[in-house]
Amino acid sequence: LYAQVQQFYAEQMRLLDDGAVREWAATFTEDGVFSANVHPEPTVGRAAIADAGGRATTELAAAGITRRHWLGMVAIRAVGPRRLHVRCYALVVSTQRGGASTISHSTTCDDDLIQVDGDWQVARREVRRDDLA
Amino acid sequence: LYAQVQQFYAEQMRLLDDGAVREWAATFTEDGVFSANVHPEPTVGRAAIADAGGRATTELAAAGITRRHWLGMVAIRAVGPRRLHVRCYALVVSTQRGGASTISHSTTCDDDLIQVDGDWQVARREVRRDDLA
Amino acid sequence: LYAQVQQFYAEQMRLLDDGAVREWAATFTEDGVFSANVHPEPTVGRAAIADAGGRATTELAAAGITRRHWLGMVAIRAVGPRRLHVRCYALVVSTQRGGASTISHSTTCDDDLIQVDGDWQVARREVRRDDLA
Repeated sequence: LYAQVQQFYAEQMRLLDDGAVREWAATFTEDGVFSANVHPEPTVGRAAIADAGGRATTELAAAGITRRHWLGMVAIRAVGPRRLHVRCYALVVSTQRGGASTISHSTTCDDDLIQVDGDWQVARREVRRDDLA
Repeated sequence: LYAQVQQFYAEQMRLLDDGAVREWAATFTEDGVFSANVHPEPTVGRAAIADAGGRATTELAAAGITRRHWLGMVAIRAVGPRRLHVRCYALVVSTQRGGASTISHSTTCDDDLIQVDGDWQVARREVRRDDLA
Repeated sequence: LYAQVQQFYAEQMRLLDDGAVREWAATFTEDGVFSANVHPEPTVGRAAIADAGGRATTELAAAGITRRHWLGMVAIRAVGPRRLHVRCYALVVSTQRGGASTISHSTTCDDDLIQVDGDWQVARREVRRDDLA
């Protein structure tokens, strides 16, 4: 189970960092909620999540920045059949083309995961940036 | 077993980073030893370990800094029944409120873990900061 | 399997970061290929890989730098019996003696792993630095 979740996160974040925002958004449930302390309101639903991901991807590409999401320090708690609550840390590492790599953000990430047809999906994600804590 | 150890580290470090120093110290054995190349003498016993964790937590809070411990590159070796030796790397990522996130320290961490009533505890931890190597 | 691969990477990188370049090179197949977008040509064969690792180790020691390779966000795909393809991220964290720790490089790493006599070995590794992307 622990390995399944780690593999899920690896694949999910790779999609986002590679700019495959439709495929990335499909790792959320159709009515998935993405909440972050940097935004006043949560983003709700796969289509809106994809749009938000797409805007960020476009801005980063224009700025010549490659972004990598690292999730780690994963703690899993089963909260029901095919239902997990995951607490973890996330780092966003940004690299300027021809330049340096720095930590853009250190965050916590709290996920509600549900298993749908054998695949894990995020029903609710709450990201809290440490600099806004 | 590998997942158990990773989950243990995730929960242990989250307690420390959240400032729950009594609960964090309870993840060491009653006579646990915390040794670090930045300190001339090891800290011995759960109460002393909690005190040291508490002082660091107070200083960081006063400075407006959120600290995150990342353990990774975990290599586990069974050294007896319910006894493990773990070698890993640790990064301390610090974030100033309203400011940037940086790597405060890169270290190695060598742990003797023992299983007590089904839970893992640290009997001995040796942290070596790379900048003092 | 996931734990096996993580433990393999932890041990492999520890050997390199500790400067045990012969032992590190032995984690590649005899005809292993190490390819990186920073080099015009791949390094081929265990002896050449050890030589390249040795040169880097000597330079870092002379400069008083401790280097740590962090692999994470590991996604594993079985491609045959005892044959895996692994995609992951890697960070190189460098620490100056008496100085600061910084991210030298953020990279992706694509590995072909094969199991030989029960041990995993790297048959082909392709490292792509994000700053050269």
